[in-house]
Order: sequence, then C-alpha cells, then structure tokens
Amino acid sequence: MKLDSIIAPVSPQLKDFEAHFRRSLRSDVGLVDAVVRYMIKRKGKRIRPALVLLSAATCGEIGDATFRGAALVELLHTATLVHDDVVDDADTRRGWPSINRIWKNKVSVLLGDYVLARGLLLSLEHEDIAFLHSTSTAVRRMSEGELLQIQKSRQMNTDEVTYFRIIGDKTASLLATCCEIGARSATENDRKVEQLRAYGEAIGIAFQIRDDLLDFLGTERTIGKPVGGDLKEKKFTLPLIYAFRQAPNGRRKAVLRALKRGVKRKEIAEILEFVKEYGGIDYADRVAKEYRDRAVDCLADFPDSEAKRALTDLATFVVSRSK
Amino acid sequence: MKLDSIIAPVSPQLKDFEAHFRRSLRSDVGLVDAVVRYMIKRKGKRIRPALVLLSAATCGEIGDATFRGAALVELLHTATLVHDDVVDDADTRRGWPSINRIWKNKVSVLLGDYVLARGLLLSLEHEDIAFLHSTSTAVRRMSEGELLQIQKSRQMNTDEVTYFRIIGDKTASLLATCCEIGARSATENDRKVEQLRAYGEAIGIAFQIRDDLLDFLGTERTIGKPVGGDLKEKKFTLPLIYAFRQAPNGRRKAVLRALKRGVKRKEIAEILEFVKEYGGIDYADRVAKEYRDRAVDCLADFPDSEAKRALTDLATFVVSRSK
Repeated sequence: MKLDSIIAPVSPQLKDFEAHFRRSLRSDVGLVDAVVRYMIKRKGKRIRPALVLLSAATCGEIGDATFRGAALVELLHTATLVHDDVVDDADTRRGWPSINRIWKNKVSVLLGDYVLARGLLLSLEHEDIAFLHSTSTAVRRMSEGELLQIQKSRQMNTDEVTYFRIIGDKTASLLATCCEIGARSATENDRKVEQLRAYGEAIGIAFQIRDDLLDFLGTERTIGKPVGGDLKEKKFTLPLIYAFRQAPNGRRKAVLRALKRGVKRKEIAEILEFVKEYGGIDYADRVAKEYRDRAVDCLADFPDSEAKRALTDLATFVVSRSK
Repeated sequence: MKLDSIIAPVSPQLKDFEAHFRRSLRSDVGLVDAVVRYMIKRKGKRIRPALVLLSAATCGEIGDATFRGAALVELLHTATLVHDDVVDDADTRRGWPSINRIWKNKVSVLLGDYVLARGLLLSLEHEDIAFLHSTSTAVRRMSEGELLQIQKSRQMNTDEVTYFRIIGDKTASLLATCCEIGARSATENDRKVEQLRAYGEAIGIAFQIRDDLLDFLGTERTIGKPVGGDLKEKKFTLPLIYAFRQAPNGRRKAVLRALKRGVKRKEIAEILEFVKEYGGIDYADRVAKEYRDRAVDCLADFPDSEAKRALTDLATFVVSRSK
C-alpha cells in the first residue's frame, strides 16, 4: 500500500491546511517572502499534518484548532529541516537546491528562526497552550535524544534500554505530539487524547526500528543513501545490539574492534552476516511488528471510521516499507 | 562610568539568577550537561537578565516570575549565540573556544534547540504566557530585521525609514522585551509596563546607532573588530545614509560605485572623510542622544530608586561607550 493512498481520507483537508500554512508565514519583507515561497513549492509529503488531521478525525471533527495544530508542527518541522541543511552543508533537499545553497547559511538560520517564531505566535495568539507544551516537550526530547545518540556513539556502548530511549526521544516524540495535538483539537476527553498520543509514540518507535533495519537490508537504490551508514557513524542500532548480546565474546570483540577502527564496504558486508547469524535482523523485525500491534491496540476503543482505518494502515506501512 | 558599576544595584540578584539559570538547563544526558557546564563557565555580562531585574525593581519587587523571565530571555539569547557561531564558523566566543569548535556543528545546533525548548517549557509550566508572547515577537522581529538588512545590502538602497525599521527589529526588540517582562513580573499596571517597554526600545535604538558610529570612529583595538566592516559588507548605516542625502549627486554616485565594487582599507578612509564632510557623524551622534533622552523620559513617572538611576545611567552609557 502506498502512503498517498493511506492518507487519502484527509487529502481535501490537506489542501485547506496549505492555505493556513502559507498564511501563517506571510511577511512584508521581500526576502522572507521569496524564501518562503520557494520552501512551499518544494514541500514534502506533509505526513505530520496528515497525522494531526487523521487523529482529529478519529476523535471527532476537524476544526480550526486542528489546522492551527497542523501548522504548528509543520512550521516546527520546517524550521528543523532548514537548520539541518546548514549543519550538514546539504546541497539539495527533496531534489531541489537547498535554501543554504541558494541564499547562504546566514539567511537559512534566520529563516529557520523566523518560521519557528511564527509557529509560536500562531499558537500563543489563539492560546493553544496545550499544543505549545506538547511541541516544546517534543523539541526538548528530539534534541536530547540526538545528543544522547552522539554521546553513545562516541563511547560505543549503547544497550537496548538506551536504544529505546534514544529512538523514543529523537523520532517518536514528534509523531506522538502530532497525534496528541490532533486529538486534543477534536475532543476534551483526556483518555482519548492519551490513546492517540500512545499510538503516535508506538508508530514512531516502529518507524525508527524499520529505518535502522533498512540500513542493513536496503540497497543504495531503494533507501536513497549508502547502506551501512549507521555502522560507519558508529551508531549501534537494535539488530547489532541484539547480535552482540547473542554472540560469543570473541566474535563480539572482533566486530567491536573493526567498528572502532572505522569500517569499509567489505567489512560492512561481514558485519551484516554477523548480525544475521546471531538473529539481529529477525529480532528487530519482530520488535517493530510488536510496536505496530501496540499502536493498533491503542485505537481499539474508537468507533470504526475512514480515519481510524487510515491510522491502522499507516502502522503496517511503517514496518513494511522498503524505503 | 563602567557597565559593571551601573548594574551593581542588582548584582546580588544576578547571583540568584545564575542558580535559576543553571537549574533550568539540568539534564540526565551527560553530553548535554557537559556542554551546558562549559557554556555557563564562559558566560557573558548577563546584560539582558540585568535589564529584566532593573525593570522589575523600578516597578515594584523582584520575585520568582522576574527570575523566570530573566532565565527565558537569557536562554533564548544563549540559543541564538550558539547557532550564530555555527553560521559564522566562529573559532572563539568571549575568548574561549566556541562550542562548535570543541563539539562540532551538529552538537551545537542540537544544543541550541535544547536550550530554546527548555526556555519555552519553563514559561509554559508557569503559564507565563505574556512572557512567551513578548519573546516570540522579539524572535520574529530579530530574524525579520536581519533578513531585511541582508536584502537591502544586496539591493544597496537602504533609506532612513528602512534603517530604523531594521535596527528596531534586529536590536531594540529584544531589549524592549527584557524591560517589558521585568516590569510585567512586578506590576499589573499596563501603563508602567508600556513605559518600560518603550524605554527598552529607545535604548536599543540608541545602542545600535552608537554601534554603527563606532564602525566609522573606533579603532580595531577599541571595538575589537576591523573598522569599516559595515562598508565592506555593504551595510548602509545612519552616518552614510545621512551623508548620501546631503552630498551632491556626483560625489554620492562615486562613493556608491566604490561600495558596489567592494572597498579596501584606503577607500574606507576616504569614505569616512566623505561621511564626516557631509555631517553624517554629527547627525548620527545627535540622533543617538535624542533616543537616549527619549529613553530617560519614559522613566519620568517612576519614583526615584537605585534601579531607576541605574536605568538612567545605562541610557547614557550606551551612547557614550567607545567599545
């Protein structure tokens, strides 16, 4: 199943969202307007706004607050991408030249700050305090999670507990926020909001485990980046962590030594064999599917609807995608 | 008069502020804690928190909300500095190696995001919504102002109206926010809050005009950066804008042509002579002092106090400093 067809139930509302989003960034400074227009033209899949809209529709009616919540998370996400491209010195984003390539780093960083401020002001003006709290918590968790990952990859000692903390913080937190905000915009029932939030956290974790699996299993063509990138960066992900636990001491130490030195293409293939041999691939696949099931369970109390079916399909999509 | 002795009336409270600030950044992630400890060790003059504290003391009593407001603006300011160093690829900050030099760009950007999120959460947890609104507005204005300045320096056509918009946005907005937040934390009287806010905006403008003057008048030794830097970057500041208005067409066009080509040391000296000859230096100095007077006028209704005298001295300090 394709992502586009899964989120089809809210595609008319995604069009309305675009108008909200554009309006929230309007500026009388010509340079700001030019960069914003460019940013909107090369927009992504709007997966986060879609999650907000689907969560709202699962709990009740999509309304103005839903659109504002969707705009807030997308503004935040956009600010992050613009800043990321500066840090990574990226030449392209989604196949288009990056903003830093066209307008330079200084403009990119300022534009990111501008986009973030507009998101905050949009929520403050409508007193969407719960949205802001959830979003700020997500920003805190995302940055802390990434920083913990960097720390652990320097120390080379990530265990399974730390792995789940890292992926929960860096990936699941924002998806949980999308679902929470969407639900909150359509219902005052705290239990429903909490169930949607838990759904978002679970698909976030499932998504990241799948992502980490694809680093072992994908091909450069399908995943769009070189295979084994995590190993090169000394990131210990679930398949490797599990294999380390199962393998005899000698084998484990040999692989660890190779990773410490820095691995090349040939050694990556050997480590992949090692991970397969000790069950790391199967284990990670199984755990990802457990999180998919957990996500689907979170939806059990909601009446059947197109939106609920979309969220259910989405949970399966994230653990079966090949890119 | 020295800055340290001007803000002396709140130096005991600035110590309390440090404890608040450190607490607000606490993390169980070792890497975060290490960078934060480093950041705090090489702290700046805490001029923004001092403004918050002095404004509160001018309106009433310094309280918990004052410290939270001071922490919010300083967290925001810190996040900006960390990100700026990445953009400028700076090696040092306040004489210490920059965070990006020690921990790399990725860590710097994430740390900046983390600091910002902690600031937002601190305010949200205490429902300091007015603080957040003022601060977010400042972030919007700062980024828009800087972007407008970049746009104008590319087009080489800044006039006086645009100049005041730029410096109001990029510099005065945050100082106005400091004073507004400080006042708001100590009084519910909207008129007083507005007067302090106007004071902050006025000293911000006076400060920036003085800064722009020093680019013409200072020496590399006193201002700590090469003289004429604004001319090299094609930034049109008040002394030049005024001289352009006064000079005959031919002279103006010759200088404009030189700036377009890019100026070297010798030409900078010639342009400085041009600006002096047509009264640009005197004019900018006069306008800065008008803004100082305007700032002092904003304090007229407040009863005499140590804090009020400090704010008055501060207004004179910003227009007479030589670095």
